[in-house]
Amino acid sequence: MPVINHLCIIGVGLIGGSLALALKEQSACGRITGCGRNIDNLNKAIELGVIDDFSTDPAEAVRGCDVIVLAVPMGNMQPLLEQIAPSLKPDAIITDVGSAKSSFLDAASHVFGELPASLVPGHPIAGNENSGVTAALVDLYQGRRVILTPHENTSDGALSVVEKMWQSCGAEIKLMDAALHDHILAATSHLPHMLAFSLVRELANSPHHDDIFRYAAGGLRDFTRIAESDPVMWRDICLSNSKAILEAIERYREELDRLQAAIESSDEQTLHTMFTEAHDARAHFRRLLDERERSGQS
Amino acid sequence: MPVINHLCIIGVGLIGGSLALALKEQSACGRITGCGRNIDNLNKAIELGVIDDFSTDPAEAVRGCDVIVLAVPMGNMQPLLEQIAPSLKPDAIITDVGSAKSSFLDAASHVFGELPASLVPGHPIAGNENSGVTAALVDLYQGRRVILTPHENTSDGALSVVEKMWQSCGAEIKLMDAALHDHILAATSHLPHMLAFSLVRELANSPHHDDIFRYAAGGLRDFTRIAESDPVMWRDICLSNSKAILEAIERYREELDRLQAAIESSDEQTLHTMFTEAHDARAHFRRLLDERERSGQS
Repeated sequence: MPVINHLCIIGVGLIGGSLALALKEQSACGRITGCGRNIDNLNKAIELGVIDDFSTDPAEAVRGCDVIVLAVPMGNMQPLLEQIAPSLKPDAIITDVGSAKSSFLDAASHVFGELPASLVPGHPIAGNENSGVTAALVDLYQGRRVILTPHENTSDGALSVVEKMWQSCGAEIKLMDAALHDHILAATSHLPHMLAFSLVRELANSPHHDDIFRYAAGGLRDFTRIAESDPVMWRDICLSNSKAILEAIERYREELDRLQAAIESSDEQTLHTMFTEAHDARAHFRRLLDERERSGQS
Repeated sequence: MPVINHLCIIGVGLIGGSLALALKEQSACGRITGCGRNIDNLNKAIELGVIDDFSTDPAEAVRGCDVIVLAVPMGNMQPLLEQIAPSLKPDAIITDVGSAKSSFLDAASHVFGELPASLVPGHPIAGNENSGVTAALVDLYQGRRVILTPHENTSDGALSVVEKMWQSCGAEIKLMDAALHDHILAATSHLPHMLAFSLVRELANSPHHDDIFRYAAGGLRDFTRIAESDPVMWRDICLSNSKAILEAIERYREELDRLQAAIESSDEQTLHTMFTEAHDARAHFRRLLDERERSGQS
């Protein structure tokens, strides 16, 4: 028996499309209706067997659906909730894949008055710099973590359905407070993206940019990979998690201040200590990731 | 006929060891004498066929050698030049692999009075976060660039030998002014390392560091890889190229200021423009690297 009879995925790109592919492979879903603005992408999604049918009208797409997954940039969440609210089936479960959870809860409060029992905010820790349904991967969530941040009114039944949905894609569920989620993601994902975007801009704006890109070694390729992520998605993440991101940037600048001061004063001992601590912390992090991979996760 | 009869490599690690392996594979060198402080590493180098013999005394090791390659951290360059100067064969060619060229020229001026005609400063743009002779790779320089920064007294003959040495390892030679080299390397390599070291320290010092490393996605692995580089080497690079590195950090901070201001003021348009410019510049950079790989380089 499928986990979900009729699912609606709004935003059929890398994240939404990969979810659909995995659910179909596991026969975990009876029917998947897609929704989006780009008809070419939706037709492609049908051609690839990612969705069964689609509507470009969210209010139409969600009609009769048991579970709705919002897989759109954070800035579209509130207008989308407003559009679908009137045509939702009673007790239809709503979840999302957004990278900031406090602002999603704020948006839902604003639209629904009080937070619905069937609302289960979520965030799969997966993805890459590609986008669009052609980038969707059936195993994107295999061994990955999905953080769910249920609020105080979330029903056990709704939470259980969303947990099972992600588990059938091979993901591991972690429950967490929305504020802690936002803080951790600011540190591990949002800050590194801000640093990479800024570095690439700084290099591109240099009068020597041609030479700079010509003489760059392999390390710079890895270091700048995340700067090729979707600009709209990241604009919205900045707006949606601005408080935690600004705090993370501030702490980072203090760290950079210390390094800059040590270079300015040619402080050999401090430089050596700082780089050794960073080296050891990265080695620890690598071992954690390696262990996770060996245990079948990644 | 070999390019070099008797070569001395001081510092038989990833960089020096890979050079030796490639020269031996190409029969480009008659005999290779290694030099270093760690006898275990030197014995390992003999066992692996990287060098033919060794001495732990640099003055002894260079005796009778035609070419000497200094593959040690930047901070050791000047003391080493002082040690080897008295026992160098007349016209022995001296080259190095250091990441900062102006300071190497300063060190040589200091030791020799005037810059010797047989001095050819060099820098292979290759390497990874590993170290020691066991990390040496026969193809490390295949398709890589080696920047040489001959000074005004460098003889054509000495330059030609060092060019041929690297070309026989599969590298492509670029000649450049030492100051431009230092500026470009500060931007493409030294600054990214400073940013990565600082990020890993900032994450490791967080009260939530366990959760942070637990919930990190793949992007952070790539982004922090270079933070696992050798602390001593990077301490010395900071001391040797401090001016260009501090300038690069300063320009970077201005870029980060602009981003921070846009987030603080929720300036959607500016954020979108900044991320789009970064995205496009990274895509351009990726295409350059892909083309280089397709043309047999990397």
